[in-house]
Amino acid sequence: MSGLAGYRGEALALLEEAGLSVGDLIKVETSDASFEGYLMPRYELADPLHIVIKLKNGYNVGISVKKIRSIVKLAEGEKPKYTPPPPPKLNTNLPKVLILGTGGTIASRIDYRTGAVHPALTAEDLHASVPEISEVAQVDAEVLFSIFSENLRAEHWCKIAEHIHTSLQKGYSGVVVTHGTDTMGYTAAALSFALRGVPIPVVLVGAQRSSDRPSSDAATNLLAATLVASKAPFSGVYVAMHAGLSDDVIAIHHGASVRKNHTSRRDAFQSINRKPVAYVKDGVIQQIDPNLPPRRAPQHDFKPAARFEERVALLKFHPNFDPTIIDYLVDKGFRGLVLEGTGLGHVGHYCYNPIKRAVDKGVLVGMSSQCIWGRVRMTVYDTGRDLLNMGVLPLDTLFPEVALVKMMWVLGNTDTLEEAKKLMLTDLVGEFTQRLHAEEQRGF
Amino acid sequence: MSGLAGYRGEALALLEEAGLSVGDLIKVETSDASFEGYLMPRYELADPLHIVIKLKNGYNVGISVKKIRSIVKLAEGEKPKYTPPPPPKLNTNLPKVLILGTGGTIASRIDYRTGAVHPALTAEDLHASVPEISEVAQVDAEVLFSIFSENLRAEHWCKIAEHIHTSLQKGYSGVVVTHGTDTMGYTAAALSFALRGVPIPVVLVGAQRSSDRPSSDAATNLLAATLVASKAPFSGVYVAMHAGLSDDVIAIHHGASVRKNHTSRRDAFQSINRKPVAYVKDGVIQQIDPNLPPRRAPQHDFKPAARFEERVALLKFHPNFDPTIIDYLVDKGFRGLVLEGTGLGHVGHYCYNPIKRAVDKGVLVGMSSQCIWGRVRMTVYDTGRDLLNMGVLPLDTLFPEVALVKMMWVLGNTDTLEEAKKLMLTDLVGEFTQRLHAEEQRGF
Repeated sequence: MSGLAGYRGEALALLEEAGLSVGDLIKVETSDASFEGYLMPRYELADPLHIVIKLKNGYNVGISVKKIRSIVKLAEGEKPKYTPPPPPKLNTNLPKVLILGTGGTIASRIDYRTGAVHPALTAEDLHASVPEISEVAQVDAEVLFSIFSENLRAEHWCKIAEHIHTSLQKGYSGVVVTHGTDTMGYTAAALSFALRGVPIPVVLVGAQRSSDRPSSDAATNLLAATLVASKAPFSGVYVAMHAGLSDDVIAIHHGASVRKNHTSRRDAFQSINRKPVAYVKDGVIQQIDPNLPPRRAPQHDFKPAARFEERVALLKFHPNFDPTIIDYLVDKGFRGLVLEGTGLGHVGHYCYNPIKRAVDKGVLVGMSSQCIWGRVRMTVYDTGRDLLNMGVLPLDTLFPEVALVKMMWVLGNTDTLEEAKKLMLTDLVGEFTQRLHAEEQRGF
Repeated sequence: MSGLAGYRGEALALLEEAGLSVGDLIKVETSDASFEGYLMPRYELADPLHIVIKLKNGYNVGISVKKIRSIVKLAEGEKPKYTPPPPPKLNTNLPKVLILGTGGTIASRIDYRTGAVHPALTAEDLHASVPEISEVAQVDAEVLFSIFSENLRAEHWCKIAEHIHTSLQKGYSGVVVTHGTDTMGYTAAALSFALRGVPIPVVLVGAQRSSDRPSSDAATNLLAATLVASKAPFSGVYVAMHAGLSDDVIAIHHGASVRKNHTSRRDAFQSINRKPVAYVKDGVIQQIDPNLPPRRAPQHDFKPAARFEERVALLKFHPNFDPTIIDYLVDKGFRGLVLEGTGLGHVGHYCYNPIKRAVDKGVLVGMSSQCIWGRVRMTVYDTGRDLLNMGVLPLDTLFPEVALVKMMWVLGNTDTLEEAKKLMLTDLVGEFTQRLHAEEQRGF
């Protein structure tokens, strides 16, 4: 790792001239402010006009090099000569769990206090950060990739699914997938379908706060995810994240029913149209949903179906929505469209002709609701009935993100439109909710 | 109103042949079921292949004419010879309130039990349906239009705003706008900006259940909206809808902070990133937000700004989002794009080039979050900083729907891009939330 990792252009020149390295404690004076903090490394595609420092309050700031009047080193940083922590003592009576790194705040091995970058997620690192993990499982760690989750695509979902399939042969009792929270809900849905019938628990986990923040949720989430992967009596794909603002309860969400509903809160993830399937509290798994598939032996006969059609779009309807976007995508060869309609599943009548044309051209068109919660019901009003008559599929309790992922999966795994339509409306992994419970659940 | 209002094609021919009229109690046998109910009228653009009947349990069903084996009249319906109810006795000491009809379930004058259609919303009808209204206001009613709200567009927002402005000269203490719930949140935001500084309360109100259903929320919502319009000490634009599942509390939501978050529940509308500004319970207004603009005399000097730029799109990012949609809209002459990004305000790096091109061509590009709740913060991660550097505006606590409407309004009311950018980030009507409260609010 270079001393100025990720910097380029004017920013790199400025830092080189000042003799600085990532990790140095520096003081920066700009035309309108003064900052003290640790010089941070940059990731991917960094712009050449800003430097980033971590303030003592834990926040990062980007500072325009155009505004910098002076920049001085206050103290030498710990240089990124990374010495791995010693291997933990393994309790060989515990189940084996694979922790698979894909990126995100939770797997970040940057030591923000020093700026030192530890690009790999090793079992030793994990044990060093969260020693309690050794009490619930024998952990192996692998980094599959290290990507901001907004950059993940269907090809990554396939790689994760295939890697988990391969790992099953090694006898893991469960797999934990560390993931950026931005698109963790999409990936959880994708793995739910791709790994349908997986014999062990696969638990996605993220962190809303990086591990150097006092309020970090990284360790508690990871520990709960590892516990579920190791010992839960059920199999399938789940997401483990804080259930509320307190530190002690982690919700285990059904992988095809979970959504990120807050930009920053630790309890941002919520089960939609259902409760979490379980909670983890005080090291104990409390199962709420009695209908989960049971855990089976990891080598149980199982084949993933890790194929996704990429030519599927999610289109959110709104007043003055331009319906020619539908024509544009159909002409471009898209095979599926999920509409995010209003209310029970409606769009303005000015969208009728493009939708009819899409259906006539053999495009699979499904309707979900931007309300997020509740059920699409297109038989109540004329707009809904008109759309049904055109051949638009009412996607019931599938909220838009899961509807999109399911359609990508269905079109990737079927040969005919009729088969695809049938699968879209079939409950494959518990993604549909039969009865919406009337009692309140928590929101924001 | 014809005896078979709205029917056409095969459906019309079948009904004519059977000698039926809307409102008749009929029995229909199909190849796989049997139905008894009242023949319903159809609206707008009805498809020619279905008839609709209302079952005794209150639900409508559409029945394909292809499947019908027999159809018989069990009882003659009340024919739509509409006799208006007598005018109510007005208490001239009460404030005057205008109830303005735009459509939707709440203003439906179809008597579902008989199928008779009463197309106008008159003050007499309202008094007949909700007699308690006479105790809180002297009500005038006008129908501006009667449209399913998914078909409303910016031109309708303008008509509503202009009509309210004209009505102010008649001395109304408040205006109630009855509205379909599908896009009521969008219209509430549009009126918040268009009627910025309005001296009286303007209260949008809808119903999630039609007034013939035992659980209808139409009457209680309308009564609360009228009370607020008549007597609230504050001015501005609000939405009145059930606060919970019980019958007795109506929430008054800030017009630029409210979203429909459930397809069917009576408490589907929720304030986002804030609490409701007030509640109505037992005929009393409990004001929660102390910072609302005070009510002033209706003739107070006030000019609406009812202009909206229609070439603005809301684009929801998702894994495998096709970024050429951005190019397509830019090339088509769109002037504004609101991105619904992930997390704190991110999109995949494969969207960078089209976004940069849009900004370079002078398109206003703003970032909101599909998380809905929380604040966009684009200084935390590199993706956010990259997008900021390209010129993408971070829209803070504006959730996507309000961000869209505000951008449409801002671009309709400014001459330069700089001015537009500045206004987008300026709190105009309380649409931004300074402090997100930590305590839980209700969700689903």
